[in-house]
Amino acid sequence: MNNLTTTESTPLSAPSLTGAAILLEIGSEYGLIDLLRQPRAVSVSEAVLHSGLAAAAVTHYCEALVSAGLLEHATPDTPSRAYRSTKAMARTIHDVGYLSWGLRACQPLIANARRFALDQREARDNYQRDGGLVARTSQWMGEQSFYPHAEEAILSLRPRHFVDLGCGSARLLVKVLQQLPEAYGTGIDISAKACADARHAAGDASLGERLRIIESPIQALADDPSPLIGADVIHAGFVLHDLMPEDEPILDRLLAACRTTAPRATLVVVDAVPFAKDERERMFSAAFSYLHHGFMGRELQSEIAWSERLARAGFGAVEIGKLGIPGGRLFLARSQ
Amino acid sequence: MNNLTTTESTPLSAPSLTGAAILLEIGSEYGLIDLLRQPRAVSVSEAVLHSGLAAAAVTHYCEALVSAGLLEHATPDTPSRAYRSTKAMARTIHDVGYLSWGLRACQPLIANARRFALDQREARDNYQRDGGLVARTSQWMGEQSFYPHAEEAILSLRPRHFVDLGCGSARLLVKVLQQLPEAYGTGIDISAKACADARHAAGDASLGERLRIIESPIQALADDPSPLIGADVIHAGFVLHDLMPEDEPILDRLLAACRTTAPRATLVVVDAVPFAKDERERMFSAAFSYLHHGFMGRELQSEIAWSERLARAGFGAVEIGKLGIPGGRLFLARSQ
Repeated sequence: MNNLTTTESTPLSAPSLTGAAILLEIGSEYGLIDLLRQPRAVSVSEAVLHSGLAAAAVTHYCEALVSAGLLEHATPDTPSRAYRSTKAMARTIHDVGYLSWGLRACQPLIANARRFALDQREARDNYQRDGGLVARTSQWMGEQSFYPHAEEAILSLRPRHFVDLGCGSARLLVKVLQQLPEAYGTGIDISAKACADARHAAGDASLGERLRIIESPIQALADDPSPLIGADVIHAGFVLHDLMPEDEPILDRLLAACRTTAPRATLVVVDAVPFAKDERERMFSAAFSYLHHGFMGRELQSEIAWSERLARAGFGAVEIGKLGIPGGRLFLARSQ
Repeated sequence: MNNLTTTESTPLSAPSLTGAAILLEIGSEYGLIDLLRQPRAVSVSEAVLHSGLAAAAVTHYCEALVSAGLLEHATPDTPSRAYRSTKAMARTIHDVGYLSWGLRACQPLIANARRFALDQREARDNYQRDGGLVARTSQWMGEQSFYPHAEEAILSLRPRHFVDLGCGSARLLVKVLQQLPEAYGTGIDISAKACADARHAAGDASLGERLRIIESPIQALADDPSPLIGADVIHAGFVLHDLMPEDEPILDRLLAACRTTAPRATLVVVDAVPFAKDERERMFSAAFSYLHHGFMGRELQSEIAWSERLARAGFGAVEIGKLGIPGGRLFLARSQ
């Protein structure tokens, strides 16, 4: 397996990143970024319809993005009528995903840090993050930092039955099934909202019977692993650490169930290791690990702990690759 | 005047900045950063006394900062007893100041962006920023991005009577008076809290009668400029834009009052120009300008607009320097 670290270009300065983050987060609140980030030109009137904002407000906002270098005028002759995203937009959105995940989505944890230090359980009940903000900022990070890595690893295995544990809105399932026309897929997620979105996405992609969505906690597979029957690739992206430390016995039974129910399956686990040491990873990884331990009641597992756990469950060779997200690892556990 | 742009080192990546921001913001909530950022070693027990947190919580937090590279063990033999900040700490705090100002202090504006687009005045009444968070993050930015520039310009003028308009907690006044033992100072600020802090700081620095603090809006000087009598340097740091556009006539009368009441004074104005175009400045400057216009009801003035306004008020040559903060400018207006 290749080392999957994303090639990095020269980083933007802290003030530039902050400026981009302020503008793109305001645009997200306006409901405009998914529209404006597309490669095609977008007219002011289309943005007005999309956002419900007044034309003057939309124009004023777009002109600020032009000044920042994130949009350009699509038709220089009629400068205020249509805009197109610049190359800086895609890269900047990815970077801003980190800032916004850390300081906007995690703001309820940070602002109440003293409460978490005094009584984590009580604080977890009282200060919760906005699920929509967590999902959107995670997606902005993932589009360059871990989605492509998992997708490439899965496609290279050419599964016939691909199972995604904690599938969310089925973004990955749809992408894989679109590229492997013979394959079918199963997605499992605990969230009713995510499952509804996943079924909607499957319909939009005309996947018909090829994609099955099951609303369930993944823990249930430890007792009823039947959804895994026939699977040749099982993926778990940033979900297995949710079982640690409280559901550790269930995690081990779940991994064993994968082995016995889908004996030829390769398991693709994407997760974060704690307190990664290398210079590129240490600052983000320390914060990510500290938040998971002290604010979310989760224990991240080291590369060695994962390898030993997978071996105990009966998997053979485990290959480990790095991701773009600092501390992120892709564990590829083959059947034998 | 030299070009005052700070020399920049290689920027940290977005994930690294985010990790540092999460950790340092949590530490600020713990009440630990002002203690830990000092160059000397700090013991766990001192940090416990300072923060009121348990020793285990303090140690766990400090170890996360060690992993991130922001602290190191002061005595490698007894690794958990004392910590010292690394070189990365000071530089990172400055960078984090931007992220935290943009996404934490300005969060009430961003999260309610649609309300501001619909009715700015109503939104301004309902969604206000935390003044303490604005002040602290501005200070983290300012320590490298604009404080040294203003201080250097003022000291090189060797004032006998230095007046600071909008003096806050008198940080700059104290620094200047400490370096110019013959000088005395006058600080004016609208905030009772800031004035109390300023008098406290003057006492701590044993400045006695050399520093006078006046609780007043700076607008009042347009009608009663007597506090300016005898001034040879008058400084206004990021305060004059608060008079635009609503108090524009008062701003012009205030500038004229400076000329007539302190005819030999040099005016040092630090402020931001709107939508600066250069590559280093454009992203932050666009966001800063957009926030001031659409969320704070303020209009920033261009270099030309400032020069013309100062000329109209009777000032002579105006020199313009750049600051570390993108879009920031230092206007040095001599008496003739």
